[in-house]
Amino acid sequence: MNTYDKFISRAGIAMRESAIRQMGTVLAQAKDMISFAPGYPAEDAFPWSAFAEMAASLFDGSDGSVLQYGPTRGFKPLREACAALMTSRGISSVVERIVVTTGSQQGLDLLARVLVDPGDVILMELPSYTGAITAFRNVGASLVGVRQDDHGVELDHLDDTWQQASSSGHAVKFLYLVPNFQNPTGRLLSLERRRAILEWAERRDVLIVEDDPYRDLYFPDVTEEHETRPIAADDHDGARVIYLSSFSKTLAPGFRVGWMSAPAAIAGKLELAKQAEDLCTGGFDQRVAYEAWRSGLLARHVPTLRTLYQHKRDVMAATLAREMGDRMRWIDPRGGFFLWAEITSLTDCDTLLRHARTHGVIFVAGSAFYVDGTGQQTLRLSFSAPSPERIEEGCKRLARAMDDALAQKRSVGSLEEL
Amino acid sequence: MNTYDKFISRAGIAMRESAIRQMGTVLAQAKDMISFAPGYPAEDAFPWSAFAEMAASLFDGSDGSVLQYGPTRGFKPLREACAALMTSRGISSVVERIVVTTGSQQGLDLLARVLVDPGDVILMELPSYTGAITAFRNVGASLVGVRQDDHGVELDHLDDTWQQASSSGHAVKFLYLVPNFQNPTGRLLSLERRRAILEWAERRDVLIVEDDPYRDLYFPDVTEEHETRPIAADDHDGARVIYLSSFSKTLAPGFRVGWMSAPAAIAGKLELAKQAEDLCTGGFDQRVAYEAWRSGLLARHVPTLRTLYQHKRDVMAATLAREMGDRMRWIDPRGGFFLWAEITSLTDCDTLLRHARTHGVIFVAGSAFYVDGTGQQTLRLSFSAPSPERIEEGCKRLARAMDDALAQKRSVGSLEEL
Repeated sequence: MNTYDKFISRAGIAMRESAIRQMGTVLAQAKDMISFAPGYPAEDAFPWSAFAEMAASLFDGSDGSVLQYGPTRGFKPLREACAALMTSRGISSVVERIVVTTGSQQGLDLLARVLVDPGDVILMELPSYTGAITAFRNVGASLVGVRQDDHGVELDHLDDTWQQASSSGHAVKFLYLVPNFQNPTGRLLSLERRRAILEWAERRDVLIVEDDPYRDLYFPDVTEEHETRPIAADDHDGARVIYLSSFSKTLAPGFRVGWMSAPAAIAGKLELAKQAEDLCTGGFDQRVAYEAWRSGLLARHVPTLRTLYQHKRDVMAATLAREMGDRMRWIDPRGGFFLWAEITSLTDCDTLLRHARTHGVIFVAGSAFYVDGTGQQTLRLSFSAPSPERIEEGCKRLARAMDDALAQKRSVGSLEEL
Repeated sequence: MNTYDKFISRAGIAMRESAIRQMGTVLAQAKDMISFAPGYPAEDAFPWSAFAEMAASLFDGSDGSVLQYGPTRGFKPLREACAALMTSRGISSVVERIVVTTGSQQGLDLLARVLVDPGDVILMELPSYTGAITAFRNVGASLVGVRQDDHGVELDHLDDTWQQASSSGHAVKFLYLVPNFQNPTGRLLSLERRRAILEWAERRDVLIVEDDPYRDLYFPDVTEEHETRPIAADDHDGARVIYLSSFSKTLAPGFRVGWMSAPAAIAGKLELAKQAEDLCTGGFDQRVAYEAWRSGLLARHVPTLRTLYQHKRDVMAATLAREMGDRMRWIDPRGGFFLWAEITSLTDCDTLLRHARTHGVIFVAGSAFYVDGTGQQTLRLSFSAPSPERIEEGCKRLARAMDDALAQKRSVGSLEEL
């Protein structure tokens, strides 16, 4: 057969590669490439010896269920641990609503399948997480972007977009948000704005999907814990907000363990969708997440991560300030993995990215995060994975790439003037 | 909110709980219940100490990528191992076509999404694996059953169903088959029939999805290895058959690792669908599967599993023959986990199942495996998980349940005669 076109579904035809994963391929092919592209946690900060101890105990053969198929909703003690973690974040949570997922990404995919028919509208921040964009696009959702200011989503624009979608006859299923240290902007949604958004969702009868993987990674020098209070914490009967979180950023993503909490009627459907997707999340992985919580490892480990990533942010911000001058501006990250920048002297980031690759550094061009096709002058720089030394070197390379891109622009410009 | 109906998608509304997973719930709630329901591998046969050794080495911190996000297609050495396993099964395989999946279940789900539009026809054996039925139903496929005789799918009926579906304007996307020790019948598709099916698929331009998780678990007393030759082995350019297999039955399902091989154009789409579903399969799990192959553990371990499950089959078959007499007949399993039975003295298995639960034994009523609503007199008994002693005791309980069910039938019958 020369072509399989006749066999591919409409959903399959529409699937496109994520810009972030593409960069992963670039990285895999290059030597000495410094990657600010994917939001990978720092591998040297994983609590390796604790994992080794847990494995020795879990693999002693005394509990066969560790490696058996398990309940689709997840290992019960882990679900209880997730409920306890939510309680510690201010959310009145119940185990019955919790579904363990194979990473938070699966949670987004399950939600898309259970809630969205082709053509249904999902409201998202401009810019927003590409993994969510892809999962929602795969079910044929119509993605409508909502502008952000320094405090997060703009309420007037939010309601305008809702009115426009509703009046054109589309069902607006939910608003997708990453309130804490958003991927890609690193932004912290203000507490006032959170409350206003919840009120708006009640008024307009729209669900909120609150994706919260970075919450624990606030930077103590500029953020207080109470500022990370989830929207779900004020959703008193748990009826309006579907909450997702993950162990990928605080333990390790190689264990594919996240969770979500949803109203019972939706949680039941999520479980059914998960049955067909992978039957259950890995048994060993779930026990590791549970043991990390039970033993106190997670609670002890997270403060060290805050310090680590805060320091990496310092290095990136200081080096960029020194090397870039006014050719780039950015949002100072108050937590999480990302520095979101805008280039002020070039028309698009693709040109910068081409030069950057030549100089041995990569990032994600910001347009990938915009559902409205804008963002050509933006870029996302992840400071989470590389060492401080590599961050400094990568920023220097980026500055040299900027020199070259601007020189090229000037030379093209002078040619045009001829 | 009292109801979330307005938020649920059409796909979500249509989702139904699998009969097998329901039985899992029954089992979790009951003490001393003997379960012949889910097809769980024997936990005491997992190579625990080998896993512990692998974990000690993989968690020594020398290779950070073990617990990092990884390529969506899978850990490259594992993909090479999967290709080598396929070669050892007679299939000329190339790494570029292989996608590692979070268990084979994910492979089925990805295929459904990438290949099937609502209303498209999938042809399946009568009966067939419920996990496949669920995954295919979740994308709105129209499932059409094909009858089986002792050698597997009946070719005349296969072509009749194809003609009927095609003439009514539906696209027939693929034929789904479990040729080796089928779930649920335990049947081995004859080699002659395999070749004829491949020729038929070429002629009718239909893809074949060959699901092969039980291949290694043939019973040497009645099956020779060459009889398990996959259909994909005769698909010389690899253009017609999509092949799935798994480490869940030969290592442990708690590591969620399976794989699939598909024509390049389809494999690319599967990768994109997987990106949105879970980004990647667990890094540690993939290394364990790879190490088990590389070290020779897998090759050494599989023969012991054959002997173990063959013995369990012996115990179940002998006990049923002694206790059930002619009230039940079954297919003698030549490999795998399942004994497929038919009750000859009752009108339906649900009655038997009700009594069986009272006696402390459960199984899956066969109708769950039929996409055409038939199979009321059939049942699937899994002999894989319980010990030989429990298998014997469970069969005795089942016979007592049969006594009760028949007594009830006679008493209802005599009332009706009044």
